[in-house]
Amino acid sequence: PQWIRNPKALRFLVGLLTSMYVLLLTIVSCLISISSAWSSPDLWLAETIFSLLMYLIAILFFMYTYLMIIYPKPINMLIMILNRKTSLVPRPDRWLLSDPIHNGEGAGTLYLRLGAIFFGTLGSVLWGCEIFLCFSGECVHRLVVAKHIAAIIFTFLQMHFIVCNSKITFHRSNILASFGMMHCVAVNLWTWFSMCLVKAQVKKLKKQKKELEYHSSSSSSSDSSSSSEEILEPESSTLLENLIEVVLEKLKPGKGTTYTSTPYPYTNSSNTTSLLRMQSMVRLGDFSSFLLTCLVEYSLIGAAICFIIWKYMGATNIEMKVDKKKKKLRMDCHNTTIGLFLGIFFMTAAFVTIGIYTMLYNKKKTQSADLVIGIVNLILFCVTLLATIFGAWRMRVLQYRLHAHGEVIDEILLIIGLVGELIYCSIGFDMIVNGNRTGSHVPNLPIAVFTFRIIQVIIQAMYILIASRLRCLSEVNARTQPGKQTLTFLVLINITLFVYHTFEGMKSTYGFPALMETKYFELLNISSPLVVFYRFHSSACLAEIWKHAYSTKHHHHSHQTPINSPTSESQHHV
Amino acid sequence: PQWIRNPKALRFLVGLLTSMYVLLLTIVSCLISISSAWSSPDLWLAETIFSLLMYLIAILFFMYTYLMIIYPKPINMLIMILNRKTSLVPRPDRWLLSDPIHNGEGAGTLYLRLGAIFFGTLGSVLWGCEIFLCFSGECVHRLVVAKHIAAIIFTFLQMHFIVCNSKITFHRSNILASFGMMHCVAVNLWTWFSMCLVKAQVKKLKKQKKELEYHSSSSSSSDSSSSSEEILEPESSTLLENLIEVVLEKLKPGKGTTYTSTPYPYTNSSNTTSLLRMQSMVRLGDFSSFLLTCLVEYSLIGAAICFIIWKYMGATNIEMKVDKKKKKLRMDCHNTTIGLFLGIFFMTAAFVTIGIYTMLYNKKKTQSADLVIGIVNLILFCVTLLATIFGAWRMRVLQYRLHAHGEVIDEILLIIGLVGELIYCSIGFDMIVNGNRTGSHVPNLPIAVFTFRIIQVIIQAMYILIASRLRCLSEVNARTQPGKQTLTFLVLINITLFVYHTFEGMKSTYGFPALMETKYFELLNISSPLVVFYRFHSSACLAEIWKHAYSTKHHHHSHQTPINSPTSESQHHV
Repeated sequence: PQWIRNPKALRFLVGLLTSMYVLLLTIVSCLISISSAWSSPDLWLAETIFSLLMYLIAILFFMYTYLMIIYPKPINMLIMILNRKTSLVPRPDRWLLSDPIHNGEGAGTLYLRLGAIFFGTLGSVLWGCEIFLCFSGECVHRLVVAKHIAAIIFTFLQMHFIVCNSKITFHRSNILASFGMMHCVAVNLWTWFSMCLVKAQVKKLKKQKKELEYHSSSSSSSDSSSSSEEILEPESSTLLENLIEVVLEKLKPGKGTTYTSTPYPYTNSSNTTSLLRMQSMVRLGDFSSFLLTCLVEYSLIGAAICFIIWKYMGATNIEMKVDKKKKKLRMDCHNTTIGLFLGIFFMTAAFVTIGIYTMLYNKKKTQSADLVIGIVNLILFCVTLLATIFGAWRMRVLQYRLHAHGEVIDEILLIIGLVGELIYCSIGFDMIVNGNRTGSHVPNLPIAVFTFRIIQVIIQAMYILIASRLRCLSEVNARTQPGKQTLTFLVLINITLFVYHTFEGMKSTYGFPALMETKYFELLNISSPLVVFYRFHSSACLAEIWKHAYSTKHHHHSHQTPINSPTSESQHHV
Repeated sequence: PQWIRNPKALRFLVGLLTSMYVLLLTIVSCLISISSAWSSPDLWLAETIFSLLMYLIAILFFMYTYLMIIYPKPINMLIMILNRKTSLVPRPDRWLLSDPIHNGEGAGTLYLRLGAIFFGTLGSVLWGCEIFLCFSGECVHRLVVAKHIAAIIFTFLQMHFIVCNSKITFHRSNILASFGMMHCVAVNLWTWFSMCLVKAQVKKLKKQKKELEYHSSSSSSSDSSSSSEEILEPESSTLLENLIEVVLEKLKPGKGTTYTSTPYPYTNSSNTTSLLRMQSMVRLGDFSSFLLTCLVEYSLIGAAICFIIWKYMGATNIEMKVDKKKKKLRMDCHNTTIGLFLGIFFMTAAFVTIGIYTMLYNKKKTQSADLVIGIVNLILFCVTLLATIFGAWRMRVLQYRLHAHGEVIDEILLIIGLVGELIYCSIGFDMIVNGNRTGSHVPNLPIAVFTFRIIQVIIQAMYILIASRLRCLSEVNARTQPGKQTLTFLVLINITLFVYHTFEGMKSTYGFPALMETKYFELLNISSPLVVFYRFHSSACLAEIWKHAYSTKHHHHSHQTPINSPTSESQHHV
């Protein structure tokens, strides 16, 4: 027979087509969001329509999934009514949809799904503020509102799908589901990319604002007699808003202006006329940076989960027809209090230093504020490094086992975060080398911070990858639970570092010079949300290990190989 | 026999003495923190020593508890070593301490203990910042550092005790434990009171700052020619800090100054010289208000839990010697997703309006910003009211049962929060009446907001008090779980209101005029943390109901009365 008749070949072909589709769509959409031509007023409408289409297709796919697969009852009822009342549907059994089965591998652990809810909720706040700005008339075009509304609907639908229905089995129309899932991947990647661009834009604006302020203050001090009639020091937020309003004026249709793209935008202030996509970013102040990071994390999680669902879509074992949608939560909190309170101690200390930083910053002591950040970073990385090594040593007595492929998503996301951290640290080292070359003074503290950071990050990633494959099979270990206190401590200190990196992302970039080349600046803006994500996802993975490594209820993999432990008199517990 | 020989009489006497002790101590300490004499430089040292003593006694009590009752092993080991090596302890069995038993009723549900960790951690940040300020030389006296350090140690010890050891049974030296617990109650109440005072002080300072700014700007506009040489508009934070530095200068020993206390401090700017207890409050900005609220909530929880432990200290049933320190967590997440996502929708909408408020506030559109707050308040209260009534209607099929006295603490705290809400709403109504009397324009929106708010608050408190006594005894109800979606929604919307009230506490007081009499101002400052606490504790109680009302594992109270449900074929599950 022809190869196309083979179902495996068909599955491969669908996979190939969808992969090509996602590659093409992602690259095209990212290029559109990066290109200067598409953000000019001529193509502004076209770009908005493109964005709208991206979201609308994803929304349509989710609605199809919900109506046809997850909640088929209304449609089945309609078919039965049509059959009974009219003669339109003579054989309803051919049209009836089957009940949903939640027996897929699923994607995403509990902690990851909680993270999706958290990040998605906070991320949508940014879209909501944007919609408000559009309705209050500060929008370039009416269609932009539709785009933001579509974005918020997409965020909600995807959140619901990830949290409730990630284990659904697509038993018919696999092709459509494959394309839909891959489209979602593309939308998420595109959102991620464009949010990073927005972040870079906002940071650039802030830098220019600072320069302008410096300029105006220096000019006013030099000739104070002439400028005293004018408004001396415009308020920080007002100036930025004025900038935006100028941009908006220029963008209003009918006034075509030319845009110059310069390689070093911080040296040329004519670049402020490039369009700011998210205006609420500037009006909300520092907090918007946090919301943007949330949106970036959310798209990252969404893309990974959609990808995993697509990957294992055809491979679900049809033999296990049982609906294993388990909804009970169980946690064993023995042997955690020491780790918990040690973690809380470090968390409090870190938060206090955030307060100290704020106080010093308000008093304009930028130098010592940066010093505080550096010392705290150094201490936190050292402590985490020691805890990781100690935890690995404590868990040496556990047993190795194969692990389910539903956990692959954790490893993918961990490695994405790891890549971000490595890029971040490498840029840091590069800046130090560059500083040495040009002869400027490079203090020792950043070098130590980056060194400990890179060592800690690598060792922690290895520890997580190994520990997620370990289980507690002997009775003695199940009782003493070696390493659980350390795991609790590591979860808390990673959450602390998550908060700390989020704060750093809002306020300062420690260890980096104020002025750097554009390519480094862009890279830094892409990698800094990943740094935050690495800490979030590390704590997610550690919590998963915390939950499963000591559970006495073993998975089916380990049932075949019970270990003959010395105290196996209570083996019936296993 | 004499009445004093009767153990019950002894217990009553100890209770009486400790009650008197706590009453006296609380009133004296609160008076010290309110009196103007004690905050003058002459008695500054005495007040610090008094505070230090308060914390130190509590710390000593906790250390005694930990060493002698909870972890007696080191002391037992020391006794055995002394017995073996020397002849100091001839009969060690008379001296050996018995093992700890965790069979008390305990105090505090899981959610409440998580809240204690959360509030305690964030609250200690404020102490930590204060310590930093002391070390950086901005402190009145060296001894103040010791006081803050004692406060932070007390916070941590009490947090550990609440979270891990609230079920401990004090089997010997009941008298000492009674006094210690009551001392903790007094310390917590005193902290609560003095934090409310600090909040009032900071708000007063902010108001004066605004008036000064207004004054300086109006004077500069009227005679701009004469004041153009001076610094025109001092930065907002700088001005406040200057105020503090002046105060500090005056307080340095050796410079005695007289203090004038005026009944209406906002009309007289000479009152700025009164001492600010927490200097970090001003330097940290708006966020410090949130930290202070956390500290207030923490002391409230701490006081209630210590009181409950003291109350049931002697009444523990000695017959159940089993150590029922259960540490497994179990949650049933069926029938929650609709409520969850509806709640998330409202949460997102509320957060968006916070963003809108911030944007409008930054553009100085205070009027419309207040309008946004008012409308959102109205919508949230209406929705919550409807959900509460719907939830009560859905839960009508459940059964009533007696409840354990460990839950009394939830009701005490709920009623404290309710009192705060009622005071808050009553002040609001009073302000409206006052506005009508003086003829100023009172809009309808605040009246509607306060009306719906007071109705919602009362109905929700009644709903919680009734629903916490309901259990699901029939099989059908255990399967369908009526009202669980509504409960989930109510938990989320109460968390939303918690965040919203926290935000309001930082930024604005909606519905209240800018100027009011001092007595209302003080009352408002005491009740506004209680409003936040009411929402937090409502969600805690609702989560507890969510967890227990539908559990198939019943408590011992309901074992005797199984209901003959129609579908009792699977009664063995119960």
